[in-house]
Amino acid sequence: MRPELRKTEPERFHDPKESGHALVRAGAFSRAERQAVYRAIETRRDVRDQFLPDPLPDDLVGRLLQAAHNAPSVGFMQPWNFLLVRAEATRRAVHAAFLKANGEAAAMFEGERQAQYRALKLEGILKAPLSICVTCDPTRGGAVVLGRTHNPRMDVYSTVCAVQNLWLAARAEGVGVGWVSIFHDSDIRAILGIPVHVEIVAWLCVGFVDRLYSEPELAVKGWRQRLPLEDLVFEERWPEEGVS
Amino acid sequence: MRPELRKTEPERFHDPKESGHALVRAGAFSRAERQAVYRAIETRRDVRDQFLPDPLPDDLVGRLLQAAHNAPSVGFMQPWNFLLVRAEATRRAVHAAFLKANGEAAAMFEGERQAQYRALKLEGILKAPLSICVTCDPTRGGAVVLGRTHNPRMDVYSTVCAVQNLWLAARAEGVGVGWVSIFHDSDIRAILGIPVHVEIVAWLCVGFVDRLYSEPELAVKGWRQRLPLEDLVFEERWPEEGVS
Repeated sequence: MRPELRKTEPERFHDPKESGHALVRAGAFSRAERQAVYRAIETRRDVRDQFLPDPLPDDLVGRLLQAAHNAPSVGFMQPWNFLLVRAEATRRAVHAAFLKANGEAAAMFEGERQAQYRALKLEGILKAPLSICVTCDPTRGGAVVLGRTHNPRMDVYSTVCAVQNLWLAARAEGVGVGWVSIFHDSDIRAILGIPVHVEIVAWLCVGFVDRLYSEPELAVKGWRQRLPLEDLVFEERWPEEGVS
Repeated sequence: MRPELRKTEPERFHDPKESGHALVRAGAFSRAERQAVYRAIETRRDVRDQFLPDPLPDDLVGRLLQAAHNAPSVGFMQPWNFLLVRAEATRRAVHAAFLKANGEAAAMFEGERQAQYRALKLEGILKAPLSICVTCDPTRGGAVVLGRTHNPRMDVYSTVCAVQNLWLAARAEGVGVGWVSIFHDSDIRAILGIPVHVEIVAWLCVGFVDRLYSEPELAVKGWRQRLPLEDLVFEERWPEEGVS
């Protein structure tokens, strides 16, 4: 009898000349394993305020980054970098950049909606003990990248897949993640010394959480509600009167 | 003693006026649950040729779409649509669009690299029984969207998160997914009748698989190798001589 391990760990063959042998059995997930994956997907939240101050152990951070690094990438270019920011002075500077941009953002909404916007907490830059700035280097794979020839944004999309992998792994580790997108790139670039050719994709606030919203926070707070999935799925082609 | 169910199903409170009560315990994942999430992340592959012809049950497809719909979205705008394409005539038309673009793509590589490119199978449009075209409607949340005020691409990033959720759920269901990005958007738009204001984000080939590559196929076939993660992680700021 083969050891139980074989059910979850595929055999690995590394000889590129024997690529046929690199195909291994796509071991089935047990019902419990499937449920765990769906649980991570369903209970993941965009966290702004529930961060605990406890520092994150290095091995845990390493697992989150490895999960990100296991994301799909166009032409296997792996265009991402991860800047781990813990220094309070740096986080204060980024928070100031957020405050400036958020004031501009609030002014774009009108009347009651603006008041509602101003009442929302939209980031946890100072509260979360760790921030991760995720970037995309479009030069990493050379000028012509397999799969990026007809969609120049595929490299950034790969980087976003890395963010989502990290986010789900974090949920499974009891760690909350909040994606902050309200700032001027130029401010973050100057604070972290990011080269001009490298694109800033995400600023992630990361920390342990012991409470999470049972539904997305913006729904709980009445900003916007969940759309019925069935309205968003079309068969075969876009309908003449589709949801838009 | 609280029933076991409570460990995995958070209590839900839906009264938006009592938003404090919508915060629930962020139940910890067991070691086995964590492992399952990492297993999905580590063994997920971009599938081009291993699709089995068996049709996918509706309930399974529904779970994959629900996983996508559970993705984070900027301002909770949920900008995505999912077009399920099973008709062979449609898939043949999309395949022809791929072939045209792929010929253009191959010509962009030189010498031995071009021969290597031409030897790769880069899509499973005809082999997979289901294709899902994932789109982003930037108008869904109105002109001003919370969180998109300073990065106009946040809506597309949300849509990419939905793709990655679907991809991981699919792995847990024994289903392979391949993302095809080599075509002219205008061709797909015409075939599916997608309005001009809606952006095409991904063409996903979806089908059961019983074999997967143990490593990313492009690594197995010698196109490009895994980068050391430690070279991609920086502390506090971008180094003076960073990997680029």
